[in-house]
Parts: sequence; structure tokens; C-alpha cells
Amino acid sequence: MAGPQRIPGILIVSDEIQLPALYLKRGEDTRLRAGHLWVFSNEVDVQRSPLGGFEPGQACVIADSRDKPIGVGYVNPNSLICARLVSRGIEHALDRSLLVHRLKVALALRERLYEEPWYRLVFGESDGLPGLTIDRFGDVLVAQTTTAGMERLKDAITEAALKVLKPRQLWWKNDASIRSMENLPAYADLGYGEAVAAPLIVREAGLEFECDPVGGQKTGWFYDQRGNRDHLRALVKGKRVLDMFSYLGGWGIRAAAFGASEVVCVDASQSAVDAIGRNAQRNGFGDRVSAVRADAFDYLKALREQRERFDVVILDPPAFVKRKKDLAEGRIAYRRLNELGMQVLERDGILITCSCSYHMPRASLLDGVQQAARHLDRQAQLLVDLQQGPDHPVHPAIAETDYLKGFVLRVLPA
Amino acid sequence: MAGPQRIPGILIVSDEIQLPALYLKRGEDTRLRAGHLWVFSNEVDVQRSPLGGFEPGQACVIADSRDKPIGVGYVNPNSLICARLVSRGIEHALDRSLLVHRLKVALALRERLYEEPWYRLVFGESDGLPGLTIDRFGDVLVAQTTTAGMERLKDAITEAALKVLKPRQLWWKNDASIRSMENLPAYADLGYGEAVAAPLIVREAGLEFECDPVGGQKTGWFYDQRGNRDHLRALVKGKRVLDMFSYLGGWGIRAAAFGASEVVCVDASQSAVDAIGRNAQRNGFGDRVSAVRADAFDYLKALREQRERFDVVILDPPAFVKRKKDLAEGRIAYRRLNELGMQVLERDGILITCSCSYHMPRASLLDGVQQAARHLDRQAQLLVDLQQGPDHPVHPAIAETDYLKGFVLRVLPA
Repeated sequence: MAGPQRIPGILIVSDEIQLPALYLKRGEDTRLRAGHLWVFSNEVDVQRSPLGGFEPGQACVIADSRDKPIGVGYVNPNSLICARLVSRGIEHALDRSLLVHRLKVALALRERLYEEPWYRLVFGESDGLPGLTIDRFGDVLVAQTTTAGMERLKDAITEAALKVLKPRQLWWKNDASIRSMENLPAYADLGYGEAVAAPLIVREAGLEFECDPVGGQKTGWFYDQRGNRDHLRALVKGKRVLDMFSYLGGWGIRAAAFGASEVVCVDASQSAVDAIGRNAQRNGFGDRVSAVRADAFDYLKALREQRERFDVVILDPPAFVKRKKDLAEGRIAYRRLNELGMQVLERDGILITCSCSYHMPRASLLDGVQQAARHLDRQAQLLVDLQQGPDHPVHPAIAETDYLKGFVLRVLPA
Repeated sequence: MAGPQRIPGILIVSDEIQLPALYLKRGEDTRLRAGHLWVFSNEVDVQRSPLGGFEPGQACVIADSRDKPIGVGYVNPNSLICARLVSRGIEHALDRSLLVHRLKVALALRERLYEEPWYRLVFGESDGLPGLTIDRFGDVLVAQTTTAGMERLKDAITEAALKVLKPRQLWWKNDASIRSMENLPAYADLGYGEAVAAPLIVREAGLEFECDPVGGQKTGWFYDQRGNRDHLRALVKGKRVLDMFSYLGGWGIRAAAFGASEVVCVDASQSAVDAIGRNAQRNGFGDRVSAVRADAFDYLKALREQRERFDVVILDPPAFVKRKKDLAEGRIAYRRLNELGMQVLERDGILITCSCSYHMPRASLLDGVQQAARHLDRQAQLLVDLQQGPDHPVHPAIAETDYLKGFVLRVLPA
């Protein structure tokens, strides 16, 4: 293929495709060439390509200081991450056809990994679609855009999804707080299909859970923990299990299915507690699963006072460290939570503890657990490192795509 | 319990137990109190407790500079790690009774995790038994001591193992190179039971493999990779699989059992290649599994020349970084190996790559993989972080107990 023709500020990709160029400063192409997909605003040669000249979400060719194109992406002049690379080389425009290709590649992986169509279908950068996530619930898709570039492509995304997956419904769950960094509004609505009153059903490991893509947390279900919940199999039979921050009962009801004798699920939200009750009933574990509405810290303290003990304690809290500057405080919160968790554990108990905070390092979480154990004169054995499921692949060059960490620990007397 | 009486250099634990004291310098108790079990020779107050006054492997009480005992352990005056803590507090002597207790605690975990008695039963420090590992193969135990302290306890270990497990045989596979750091000789012999000519059989996931506890690598089988091999299930059906550094065919024959259409196992040792052939036959996969004797790097280069391609490539090499000073060289070797592995992968292929080198950081392994991918103009998706199985628990305060790392990656065109 011949190189692109050059007019100041415009790279002509083909007869049909003409894209404005975003020029990087000298040397600022290194990270992108090593595999990363993000351009920070201080890396742009704003003399040659002023950011103010771009509309939010506009497609562009990203080029190095010697005019060599790195690939096609999109710009947001208002964001610290001012551009994201979507395609290396300039053969492809940022259009429905590219989206169809990327969706097919993403789908091929999930169809290989899972027997049923319930999974995260697209995980942003890791699937070559920066700023887009799509969760699949059978014939219902719940999509989320987090960048202006993807927001502009909503119609093309819908068309591509219809072509590749023929869904009955596609929801836009566009209320993530991260959207405000791109000046995008928060909303949730039906993008395709007919609204029906029935709850959305997610299938996991032969069980069914009702969830709510509009009113619920994130896209309605935490697929990222599915494989981690499989580890309950060898650990809960005939045991008493406490599931903190239970949400819809994912961990607790899986524990019941693996033979736990009694499961207490705790969540701060009444609607979650109601849903746990319905989900337990739906799967036939209404007699062994109870749901309590309470603040997690208060509830654990009360259990400690009452000298209640569980064989297995699961701590799967929301992110305590949402921004890097919250790390010191977050560390303390995780340490406190884990200490409380251990205080309601039997002498030879299993603690399952997680953090979905990207900014909380795995080593810090483990340090906090170890400090808590020593403080209580107990000894922990780390049995399993937990991780996000393979439908949330990590991009090896983008650390931010690796966010979920956790441990299965055996906690013994010292 | 009353504190110990004090005579210079001797702590009287009870009427029966009198142990010499190893005194630490001021402040050097911090790491031990935080959970670690090792004392380095420069941390000892050699004025009060000269290391030369201890025999290799002698039991002791480890005490801080204010004479407060931390616990019971053992000394090796000739080693950089000059003492290891076995028990916190001084209620317990380092004897058969303590060993029986620790074996029972270790066994309880494995019986919870595994349906059949094939696993690592004791993993040194992580199971409260520094310097001892025991692998269980049904009614055969293969034990290894790596410190003078455990070597001295061999008879008590045998007695404790007989009491708790009633094995038919107990082998000592005491030929690890690490033993030379404690001035221990290398040998392998039968410690209990009658020698029989039949090969030792290991059962994994419904398959049987013959292995050799005396002539084979380590204790004969790599239990640490068992759970990692389970990940082949979703990845190999109808696929062509290449298993490099195959040893006894663990990965490759598991792949055949999960439905791989063709498996090529490669190992540099003729006895391993012969064993792979027998193990494939034994499990009924002789028609789909072939074994080749070759140097891994040479063989991969030859496959590349011949434009051979596999759907799944497994790279499970021996440790390339045995000592910290080998890291720079080892990084290059891992990077080269992974690049060769990717060069014989199909366009949408799965690479499984491991390192059992403690000194090779996970991040360095991933960097090398990413660099190799970019060099070949390919894009990797990290699907699964591999780790040692839960019968090799990590001690949260001892980084050295966390040694096995690896990745399941999908490798796509860029």
C-alpha cells in the first residue's frame, strides 16, 4: 500500500477516507509503538495539530513527529487522555465495518471459553475497542461507552451488534462516573428492542439470578468474579458462610449450591437484599440463604460482639480506592475490613477477600491481610490468587485493564 | 504460663525441655514478629550467642534483645539464613509431637481440596515446617529436607508421617542443589518400606502417569502446575497442541484428554521422551500424542523454518533464573523463548507460558511477552494469570514461597 498523501493537518487514508492528523511530539510515539493505546494531551504537538481544532470524539490519524502514521483513533480535546488508538495502520476507518470485525474477534474468544451466552463480550482497550464495554445476557446486550469517541459511534455500534449478535434488546447503561471526565452526560436507556417488564436473567454455573441493567450496579452483574466464585466448590460443603457486600447474592447463592449448610448474605441496599431473597428462592435455596440489610462494618462488629463464627467469610466490597489520592485511606479501610472478617472466622477458617480498585496494589492488600492476621495472633496461608475472568482480558501494555485482585486464604491459629 | 527461667545462653522451656537461646540484636525481631520465619546471620547478637557454639541443625529458642522469646526454631551456623522459626511461643519442643500436629493441619487442608491423595502434603515454611517438603502419591511419600535442622529430624519426621498417614513407602529425595548451602550431601534413598520395581503412579484429573521419585526431576511430579493444566479444558478441543519442556507429558496428555486433535511433546531427555510415550499409551492417547527428543530452542527454530503452526503452544521451561544475578540473562532467554513460541502459533492462537523462577518477576515475564508480540506485529490478550496450586500455599510474609507464575494468552494479528 502506498503511504498517505499529505495536506497540512489532513491525512488522506484512501479515496473515501480523509482524516485529520493528530501529531505527536518527538519521541512520544514510543509508548504507543510498544503496545499502549492512549495519548496524553501533553504528548501532542499542538503547534501542528491544535487540540481545539478537534471536536470531542472526532476520528483522526495519530502520527509521529516525522509524519509517520501510527494508526486510526479518536480525539477528545477536553480529556487528559486526549486520544485513543483503535487500529494500527491506516487501512481501516473507524466505522461499522471495523466494529463488526472487532465484535467477531471478541465473540470468538467468548464462544471458545463459555458454553452459554452470558459473559462480558467487549472489554474496552483489551478487545481493541477503547471506551466500550458490552455485557451479554443471552439475547440482551448491556453496553456502556466511557469516551466521547465511542459515544459518537453509538449508532454504528448498535448496527454492528445487530449484525453480529442479533440481540432482542440493547441497553445503554451510560451512567459511570468516569464519563464526566469526558464531559459526557449520565443516562441509561433502551437503545434497541422493545421494553418488557420482566427482570433480566443472568445464568451462572447452572443457576439463575435476576438483575437490573438500568437500576442496578454497573451493567447489572459482576461477570468478572464468576471464575473466582468457582473456587467455593472445594471449600463450603457443610459449612457456615458469610457473604459481605453480597449485592444480588452471587457468592452466597453459589456457596449454597456447593452445599453450604447456612449462608448469610449482607448488603447495605434494601433492593439488593430483596433480590437476594428472590434469587435464593428461584434456585431452591430459600431455606439455607438469608439476607440482611446492614452496613458491613457495623454488622461485622455486631457479629464479633455476639461471638458469632463462620467457616467461610467472603469480603467483596465496592472499590475503596477510586482515585490514587485515596490510597492511604483505602489501605486502612481494607485492613480494618479484613481484620473484622478474621474476627468472625472459626479457628481453621477460609477468608475470601477482594479489591476491585485498580489503584489498590495486590501487594498492599496482602500486606493488610498479613498485618491483620498477626495483630490477631493468627497465621494465614494464601491458597489462591483471585483475578478477573478471561472475558475481561488484560491488555499486557495497559496496566489499568488489570484491576480485580483477591485472595483465598486459610486462617489458622499462629 | 510462667515465663522461662534464664541461665546465660540457656532458656528452660519446661522441666523436660532446655534449649540454648539464639539472641537477636536490638530491633531485629521486627520481621519475625510481622510473620517471617527466617533469621539472617547478621541479625544475631553473637556476643551473647556465638553462632559457633551451635551445631548445624540444633534446636534453639529465638529471643529478642530484651530476652523475650519469640519461639522455637533451629540453627545452622554455616548458612546465611542461620535460623528458622518453627513455632511461636515456647510451649512446644521441636519434636515428633509438633511434627504430628503440623502434618495433621497440612493434611486437613489437602483433604478438603482434593478428592484423591495425590498432592504436595507439606510445603515448607507455608505449612509451618521450614526446610521440609513432602509430596504424596497415594500411599507413597516423597520427602525432601533442605536444611540441617530438618535433616536432623529425619527419624522424627518418618515416625510422624507413619503415625498420621501410614504410608507404604517413604522416600528421601535429598538431592536439591539448595542443600549445598547448608553443607548437606546429595542423596536419594528409601527411608521406610520395601523397595519394589514397579514405577510410581501419579493420578491427576482421572489420568495416570508413571514417574520416578529417585531418578526423576524434583520429587517426581510437578503438582504445582495441576490447576494450571485444568485451563486447557476450554482451549484445546480439536486443536493442534505443542508442549515444550514436556517432562512426563503432564500438559500434553491432559490436552489430549480434553480433546486435542494432535499433541507434540518435546523434551531434551530421552528417558522423559520414553516416559511420555508410555504415559500416552497408558491413558489411551498413543495415536494423538507424539514425543520428540530435542533442544527446545533448536526445535522451535526448525518448526519456524518449516512454517509449522499450532493452535496452542505451551512453554513450561525449567528455571532460567536460578540466582538473582542471572536475571538479566534469564529475561533475554524468556523473551527469546516466547518469541519463538509465537512464531509457530496460528493467527488466532493460545500461548501458555510459565516461569518457576522465584527471581523472575511476573511483570518482567509479561514485559518480555509483550515485547515479543510487538516485535512480531501481534497483539496479546492476557486471559489467565497462572499460579502454583493451593497445595503449595504462599506464606504472606515470605515472598520466596511465591515462585510459580505464568500466563494464558491469546495472540492475535495486531
